[in-house]
Amino acid sequence: MNLVLLFEQDFIAPGRARLEGRRLAHVAGIHRAAVGGSLMVGVANGRMGRGLITRLDPTTLEMEVALDQDPPPKLPLTLILALPRPKVLNRALAAATSLGAARIVLINAWKVEKSYWKSPRLSDENLLLQRVLGLEQSKDTVLPELRLARFFKTFVEDELPALMKNTLPLVAHPGAADPCPRDAAKPVTLAIGPEGGWLDAEVQRLVETGFQPVDLGHRILRVETALASLVGRLF
Amino acid sequence: MNLVLLFEQDFIAPGRARLEGRRLAHVAGIHRAAVGGSLMVGVANGRMGRGLITRLDPTTLEMEVALDQDPPPKLPLTLILALPRPKVLNRALAAATSLGAARIVLINAWKVEKSYWKSPRLSDENLLLQRVLGLEQSKDTVLPELRLARFFKTFVEDELPALMKNTLPLVAHPGAADPCPRDAAKPVTLAIGPEGGWLDAEVQRLVETGFQPVDLGHRILRVETALASLVGRLF
Repeated sequence: MNLVLLFEQDFIAPGRARLEGRRLAHVAGIHRAAVGGSLMVGVANGRMGRGLITRLDPTTLEMEVALDQDPPPKLPLTLILALPRPKVLNRALAAATSLGAARIVLINAWKVEKSYWKSPRLSDENLLLQRVLGLEQSKDTVLPELRLARFFKTFVEDELPALMKNTLPLVAHPGAADPCPRDAAKPVTLAIGPEGGWLDAEVQRLVETGFQPVDLGHRILRVETALASLVGRLF
Repeated sequence: MNLVLLFEQDFIAPGRARLEGRRLAHVAGIHRAAVGGSLMVGVANGRMGRGLITRLDPTTLEMEVALDQDPPPKLPLTLILALPRPKVLNRALAAATSLGAARIVLINAWKVEKSYWKSPRLSDENLLLQRVLGLEQSKDTVLPELRLARFFKTFVEDELPALMKNTLPLVAHPGAADPCPRDAAKPVTLAIGPEGGWLDAEVQRLVETGFQPVDLGHRILRVETALASLVGRLF
């Protein structure tokens, strides 16, 4: 936790915030926070600064918050991610957020098991928590927009054309003729398939929508590793 | 597991291998392996191919192995990684291996807690297992060379000059004047510091040895995310 992300409900008065639960346990245990010390803080979707700790007991931490910095710019990246299996979802969401993706769409694909869509990890609470963890890691405050696209065809036909407008749309597909480009000079929409890969028909549907298939090399990487590698290459 | 990595002791006869334990549980449970089916296999530090399953019971799987492919080339990358805390070590080793790093050095730094060097995760068995997991993920057979450098100064003075010869030596350091270069045209030696960063004196010592400090941007990334992003950028 390189930044404590604060929400409106954490403020008990203007400029005074209170922590309990997970964040308190972390800053007390790992950061060894103490009264008089200060923490890097930020307000969700707002500015960043320091919190001076004015009270600390086993259940509560209070601080005076001064916000004097803007958060870092988001990457101009819309990530279209085939819904990963639940175990991988948390890591992938936190990694995508920490890398700075502006928007994340979790989409269905033929090789996404139906049961994944029933995972408790798709609760609003967990989808928020994983993004918060990514922001806390990367010292950012701006939550990436998140959408769930339960129906591939509907999303690709009805919503994707508007989302991808004025971007470079790429779909990661092993064996594609072109490698992933470097240093994209414009915003990117990047589609990454499920563990078993996209069906050829799914790639074809994306190509018809304007996407360019790109190859990532011989190695099969975990989704969060592939994602970080692509972001490093593209931006 | 996209490839089952086999070791000499797995062979019960030429071309016949037997699996038990972790690998059996994985291919039986996740891959739903069955007699007559086949698996992608590779021999540690050797060739890759298919294994035709000839016997499967709850404790043993046997297969006939035919090896007809070379493993993918390693990345010309020596990674000098400040020893991460134990929880992070496994992920970082598996990720570095899956990305194809040819050599990994786990090195001490001022901000590496001494207790990390006593972690059971530094056992030979675990250090091998994490690299095997990375190879199984990325369909590779060649174990990256691994060294433990318990003493920063000794390693940097006595061993590093030979290791980094004819490579581009880079040290990741937030706030460095230069960004990380793209598309390195030669092998790279890449030093990544601990969670709290390198001391200035440590960076200085590396600079005196020939390293160039490079900045990675505003965001603080987990070591395995930073690593993947740098590899995507450099290669």
